Amino acid sequence: MLTKKIINDGNYAVDEMLDGIIAAHPRFLRRVDGNPRSIVALDGPRPGKVGLVIGGGSGHEPTFLGFVGKGLADAAAIGNVFASPPPEPILECTKAANGGAGVLFMYGNYAGDVMNFDMAAEMAGMEDIEVRTMLTMDDVASAPRDRQNTQRGVAGNFFIFKAAGAACDLMLPIDECERLARKANDHTFTMGVALNPCSLPQTRRYNFDLGPDEMEIGMGIHGESGIARGTMKSANEIVDDMLDRILAEMSPQRGDSVAVLIN
Amino acid sequence: MLTKKIINDGNYAVDEMLDGIIAAHPRFLRRVDGNPRSIVALDGPRPGKVGLVIGGGSGHEPTFLGFVGKGLADAAAIGNVFASPPPEPILECTKAANGGAGVLFMYGNYAGDVMNFDMAAEMAGMEDIEVRTMLTMDDVASAPRDRQNTQRGVAGNFFIFKAAGAACDLMLPIDECERLARKANDHTFTMGVALNPCSLPQTRRYNFDLGPDEMEIGMGIHGESGIARGTMKSANEIVDDMLDRILAEMSPQRGDSVAVLIN
Repeated sequence: MLTKKIINDGNYAVDEMLDGIIAAHPRFLRRVDGNPRSIVALDGPRPGKVGLVIGGGSGHEPTFLGFVGKGLADAAAIGNVFASPPPEPILECTKAANGGAGVLFMYGNYAGDVMNFDMAAEMAGMEDIEVRTMLTMDDVASAPRDRQNTQRGVAGNFFIFKAAGAACDLMLPIDECERLARKANDHTFTMGVALNPCSLPQTRRYNFDLGPDEMEIGMGIHGESGIARGTMKSANEIVDDMLDRILAEMSPQRGDSVAVLIN
Repeated sequence: MLTKKIINDGNYAVDEMLDGIIAAHPRFLRRVDGNPRSIVALDGPRPGKVGLVIGGGSGHEPTFLGFVGKGLADAAAIGNVFASPPPEPILECTKAANGGAGVLFMYGNYAGDVMNFDMAAEMAGMEDIEVRTMLTMDDVASAPRDRQNTQRGVAGNFFIFKAAGAACDLMLPIDECERLARKANDHTFTMGVALNPCSLPQTRRYNFDLGPDEMEIGMGIHGESGIARGTMKSANEIVDDMLDRILAEMSPQRGDSVAVLIN
């Protein structure tokens, strides 16, 4: 069965979405001339400030373009649905965000993104822009924290980008911006639960199956397998299960402050 | 087929939602002691200010409780899903919002809400609180504008509540607050389109049927019949159809300013 979507053509849905967002927010966002997949904060980049460039596939809105603005990311490179942007829009974002103090790349830990952002970093280096890379890795369902380099970056982006964006906005040097971004990442722990599959605009077909009374704990944001599939439970039981797993990795101490995001 | 929802018990979903919202926003919202369905803005009501009380059934979040705050509504009475609140929580909201300058009731034009708010207005009158009532009526699919008193109040609440809330916050007298609220209502035109039914937490069953390739233009927010059912169209065609109908009622003149909400 094809799912229903209010779009025109699945192949142009991302570009039309960007047209709409730019039209709605002309005081805050612009596109790089000649590269409509490079979205830049109007009040973001400035001389002497570390630039913060984020990006990734579409289909996760408000991630990534919703996190572009003063005090957040200076620019975002926008890929197709569930697909990394190629190096060119990332490079354009890098140039737009460059204030001469270096540029920080931050994005979720996915192979396609790593490949394309690394290529863009190399190209930026040839233009004498120093690039540091920090992969967000917060999904404790994808791997235990002692193998964090295999964890996926998901909803925790929200906190990690904000911490890094604030550090950059305070005009801190790149070493300090990177340190604070890594600290935020090390202290962010997330987990997802899926009740229903999604469908891509191009195919309009579900990307996995879940039975009418099933749920899956720990599923990734592109339908990556989770850690437990079972029958639907109550909200309290689901939260208990997720929090047990998050707290086991987090090991909070009495008196610690925590910020909670429920997406 | 029962739909999946992350809740505990459908009968307590509304109260648990309110528990969560109050816990999340202790600096902005409170409940009336002894009436957990009466939500009050902490910085809203004050002496000499016209009080603005809104409310209606749950299931339309952020309407209504998301519109409670300084410069918006002073209080909202919260009903069960798709059901009007009874008079008591409305009366409690009225007392909490009363600053001695009168209280404005604003809510969508539904029979159950009219009955319960009218009863609360009568009870408030017995406590010497002057109440004015303004029904929001913006859905041009439910009736033509020349029979506006049969139009439903839907997404246009957003603009109408905001205009009225700003008038009250400016400490304008109740006549002027009411006039500006009516003016906003008269200038607000909305229309909905439905692709899929919803299900209530108690029943978890769909409240109407739409075929796998069908859509319905003009459907109300509780599944009330729309004005045209047909096969799915493209986004451009859907918007053209909706805008033709909205503009026919609105009759804008060249040079008019408009604000657009896409929900």
